[in-house]
Amino acid sequence: MNDYATGVDEIFRAYQRIGKHVHRTPLLSNRTLSEQSSLDLRFKCELFQRTGSFKIRGALNAILNLDPEVAKRGVVTHSSGNHGQAVALAAAMQDIEAHVVVPSNTSATKRQAVASYGARLYECEATQQAREREAQRLVTALNATLIPPFDHPDIIAGQGTIALELLEQAHELDAVVVPVGGGGMVSGIALALASLAPRVRVIAAEPAEADDTFRSILHGSRQPLSDGHTIADGLRTRVGELTWPIIRDHVERVIRVDENSIVHSMRHTWERTKLLIEPSAAVGIAALHSDELQALELGTVAVILCGGNVDLSNLPW
Amino acid sequence: MNDYATGVDEIFRAYQRIGKHVHRTPLLSNRTLSEQSSLDLRFKCELFQRTGSFKIRGALNAILNLDPEVAKRGVVTHSSGNHGQAVALAAAMQDIEAHVVVPSNTSATKRQAVASYGARLYECEATQQAREREAQRLVTALNATLIPPFDHPDIIAGQGTIALELLEQAHELDAVVVPVGGGGMVSGIALALASLAPRVRVIAAEPAEADDTFRSILHGSRQPLSDGHTIADGLRTRVGELTWPIIRDHVERVIRVDENSIVHSMRHTWERTKLLIEPSAAVGIAALHSDELQALELGTVAVILCGGNVDLSNLPW
Repeated sequence: MNDYATGVDEIFRAYQRIGKHVHRTPLLSNRTLSEQSSLDLRFKCELFQRTGSFKIRGALNAILNLDPEVAKRGVVTHSSGNHGQAVALAAAMQDIEAHVVVPSNTSATKRQAVASYGARLYECEATQQAREREAQRLVTALNATLIPPFDHPDIIAGQGTIALELLEQAHELDAVVVPVGGGGMVSGIALALASLAPRVRVIAAEPAEADDTFRSILHGSRQPLSDGHTIADGLRTRVGELTWPIIRDHVERVIRVDENSIVHSMRHTWERTKLLIEPSAAVGIAALHSDELQALELGTVAVILCGGNVDLSNLPW
Repeated sequence: MNDYATGVDEIFRAYQRIGKHVHRTPLLSNRTLSEQSSLDLRFKCELFQRTGSFKIRGALNAILNLDPEVAKRGVVTHSSGNHGQAVALAAAMQDIEAHVVVPSNTSATKRQAVASYGARLYECEATQQAREREAQRLVTALNATLIPPFDHPDIIAGQGTIALELLEQAHELDAVVVPVGGGGMVSGIALALASLAPRVRVIAAEPAEADDTFRSILHGSRQPLSDGHTIADGLRTRVGELTWPIIRDHVERVIRVDENSIVHSMRHTWERTKLLIEPSAAVGIAALHSDELQALELGTVAVILCGGNVDLSNLPW
């Protein structure tokens, strides 16, 4: 495993760093959803994590791992979503400044969430290029550090700490289902399980409208993002350069789900479990009902409910 | 306490009866809501209970306590809400028939929920009188047993089992905040705590638009329901004859909350905790921010999040 960006030792070290600052989120079950999927389901409730998603694990690990002299010059990111909130809170916890670039089309709710943790916001044009340019400008001007959303060893290791908790909370797991966008979460979890519990199968779930990870596995090489549109905005991201080889080697398969099944799974999960999951988390639920997963005849399956940040004024039904 | 309908021994017996059939719901915390209320909050998550509310505890206790010969003739209720679902599931678990009277204005969602547990539905006019008459007709025609929603010793004892779990899950509780409608839940919890943990203060939370319990305590006698309208439909009920004396003697105070604060608390709880609570549960959250509760200068406070059954097509914001 020496070619990977990080490894299980780094995941343990990440947990030592962040463990006392983040929630050990509960693992819940639900009879109805288990019966409906013919599986014994366990829900890893990262929607209850600080900032409402797992992203704080990686962001905080990256910031705690900075040299103090470097850290005090501040951190920069250009995510207006869950990673933006995570960087903002992690920086506030360390008493350093967070500079968050937000595209002009970012909703007021998301801006407020990032600002509520004390970050400074910088507006830019709503293109990937403009975001990266503005972030780079800030890094140079402030001599600050860029905290990327997934393609960084400390981010991958931080997200991998989910697996350490999962192994303590659930015994006899057959598989874990993990949504994939840039791949920080699934690669961290897969690395941890490959070392600590190789019997547990790692299955990624991806929107069919953003299925570059699926196609990358099909072709054996990292593919570009297609230009579909998915409601699971957290997963509208190309798999990373560093996360890709880990996923290639340690994720058994990627299950694609369509938009209707994401919306249906989100609403059904709200109704039956009372867990307010976001669309990205619903992608994992939707995968449970796919023919492909059902054909594996699994018993106990954990699903990572990765977040719960939803605009309640704009629901998809 | 000999004049009350039930007592702590009956609550322990109820737990022996129902304990293996109902969920021991988790007790969760949330940093943001705790900070905002200047309290150390614990949420007793009865929204995760089977059928999505605490009502299964009382309904199942009442049904399990029937003589088998009586039970097999079936059970009747005229609640189309959480108690209706609870009776339907409890009957299904015992393999007996449930006959549920639903007023003609009952939503399709609620009908489906009751029907999904295998109950038979009977439609009647949307008046309290018509409901009671139809239920009584069924009791007579079928020689079946009426399972009332709150004013019955077995129902009170069943709901009181919440307190037994709470005392195991939380130490050093200063108070518990419990929504009150008919009073089955708060009277059961108050009876258990009066015997087992008299130091824990019991505070009821009630919609100002249905404040008969507040007025009953004020006048020292059970008052009629006013004709206000509250979104907390589970609490649009007059306090019971059997629950009233327990509440009078063991509930320290009733805090009234207005409709705006219920809706705001519901939405805010969804956004910050990702717990999909129903309006009745939001009544308890709203009470936390009242001047009256804040003046008590409490430390650790448990709030009973009594249910999570919400029509997602018809949200109040």
